[in-house]
Amino acid sequence: MIAAWIDRGAVRVRDDLPRPGLEPGEAVVRVLMAGICGTDLELMRGYRGFTGIPGHEFVGRVEEGPPDWVGARVVAEINVTCSSHPAESNCVNCANGRTTHCSHREVIGIRQRNGAFAGWLRVPVANLHRVPERLPDEVAVFTEPVAAACRVLEQIEDEIGSSRVSRALVVGAGRLGQLVARVLAPRLPGLEVAGRSERSLARAHDAGLTARPVAVVEEAAYDLVVDCTGAPTGFAAARRAVRPRGTLILKSTHNNGLALDISSIVVDEIRLLGSRCGPVEDALAMLERRDIEVDDLIDDRLPLTAAAEAFRRAAEPGAAKVLLVP
Amino acid sequence: MIAAWIDRGAVRVRDDLPRPGLEPGEAVVRVLMAGICGTDLELMRGYRGFTGIPGHEFVGRVEEGPPDWVGARVVAEINVTCSSHPAESNCVNCANGRTTHCSHREVIGIRQRNGAFAGWLRVPVANLHRVPERLPDEVAVFTEPVAAACRVLEQIEDEIGSSRVSRALVVGAGRLGQLVARVLAPRLPGLEVAGRSERSLARAHDAGLTARPVAVVEEAAYDLVVDCTGAPTGFAAARRAVRPRGTLILKSTHNNGLALDISSIVVDEIRLLGSRCGPVEDALAMLERRDIEVDDLIDDRLPLTAAAEAFRRAAEPGAAKVLLVP
Repeated sequence: MIAAWIDRGAVRVRDDLPRPGLEPGEAVVRVLMAGICGTDLELMRGYRGFTGIPGHEFVGRVEEGPPDWVGARVVAEINVTCSSHPAESNCVNCANGRTTHCSHREVIGIRQRNGAFAGWLRVPVANLHRVPERLPDEVAVFTEPVAAACRVLEQIEDEIGSSRVSRALVVGAGRLGQLVARVLAPRLPGLEVAGRSERSLARAHDAGLTARPVAVVEEAAYDLVVDCTGAPTGFAAARRAVRPRGTLILKSTHNNGLALDISSIVVDEIRLLGSRCGPVEDALAMLERRDIEVDDLIDDRLPLTAAAEAFRRAAEPGAAKVLLVP
Repeated sequence: MIAAWIDRGAVRVRDDLPRPGLEPGEAVVRVLMAGICGTDLELMRGYRGFTGIPGHEFVGRVEEGPPDWVGARVVAEINVTCSSHPAESNCVNCANGRTTHCSHREVIGIRQRNGAFAGWLRVPVANLHRVPERLPDEVAVFTEPVAAACRVLEQIEDEIGSSRVSRALVVGAGRLGQLVARVLAPRLPGLEVAGRSERSLARAHDAGLTARPVAVVEEAAYDLVVDCTGAPTGFAAARRAVRPRGTLILKSTHNNGLALDISSIVVDEIRLLGSRCGPVEDALAMLERRDIEVDDLIDDRLPLTAAAEAFRRAAEPGAAKVLLVP
């Protein structure tokens, strides 16, 4: 089959890869559509030394697997864990409900498991989620990043409930920042988005968000700041924006270590929260209710054979989502 | 008067300094005893470019000020804020109850205000706390660092209440780590302390704590870890010890920026919490009830004239508290 392949700092298209076969507890899913995210670009640049087929945002159709799943349109939880194959004994993280942190995990398209920039991929049945009929592929393909945005909501639920957050800021108006802002905005009136490119600020503005250039963000003013930039300068801006005893959520991975002034974190008693994968069902429900719109985030739709070009476009300043269609 | 003086990376004794005079809303306090802490050593090494008289852990007696305070034995809240001089208008932090983060603050012996390694110092009356009669000076002098330890309790109160913390670890068995561990231990059964020097581990053991060398600490195993080391290697050990979705409290300031692998914080969804000054009244009450013992933490008691030697001893591996007596 054809697939995109990451190896030694580059992405290329291969047509010599075997179509994955069925294994116990798993399903073979034909990819209908897949999205490129910032982590894919980081993987291409060498993050985690990944070699293989990337792609963890996708919607597909089950072709092989349990009869009640064959033919179903699906998205997937991307962490393949002890819970994905329940016959085995559970690691300490799975045993304590932290399944996305499974000590033995593979992650679809990110860690030790091929992803969705391919004609087909294998997914454990336990990881599959059915896509509601009325969700078009172009919307369902956003399930994984919307779930990641919903994870922020889970993490700050207590703070929102106790009204400790009155000013909130999302730094980064790219594909992830836009989704995080759209998921948070209904719960955090007055939420602002800060970005660098005019294109992404205009996009945020058109979506009804309060958007401003990073350069004019008020310092030490926000109760809650979410860094969605994946860039050291973006992280620094996010750090400056948070007030003493405020919360700084780190949503982006950074390929390289980041120098952080720990003393300032101590002196200002900042709460830093790492944030990764989120609840798939919440994301599907949110998309089905049209609580958030994603149509305007699609910049391009390219065939899988043009994967290298698609990665290039996804890396452009202000780019949002580039979709790959096998 | 005689005082210790920090300037350009060194501490020396000066005898040419004027005794501080009375100012509105303030009191002149004669120092009875003062303690050297890690921050003092950092200030000596250039942290914050401090020049002046250090010393923020002290017990003293009011010599000049309001009649109802003169003669009182006192300790002090070290942050001099809008609340310290209530006639002035409040900054945004003070207005929101974050008085220790006052935007205009001075900090006794740390920031823009002379400290207690002197015969006398000036303290705003609003910052004074009376010392209970039966607390000897040698115990009362620990009020400020015990308050800092109590701050950790404040920050994790919700987690303790919801039983989300079953394994807790304090990294660093020096003067601050010992106090943090002693304050936390009654609330967190099974708390462990990790240290480097045999001397400090023995001290922790003798105080009834479970102590072990940093080198044998289990990785990714603790729900809550408190870094009290002030050293990059200590911070790294603390980071390794915390489990996914666990809490890492940063209690020590670090003179230099620290390289932190932000991606691992994101991937493991770690919660990092900076922690600084704490509630003085809680600390006094805890010391008065003898909830924690501090006698064994006093290594040395030297006259103020020997301040340079006292700083040297306080910097030795495994050293706990060195007291200065004017």
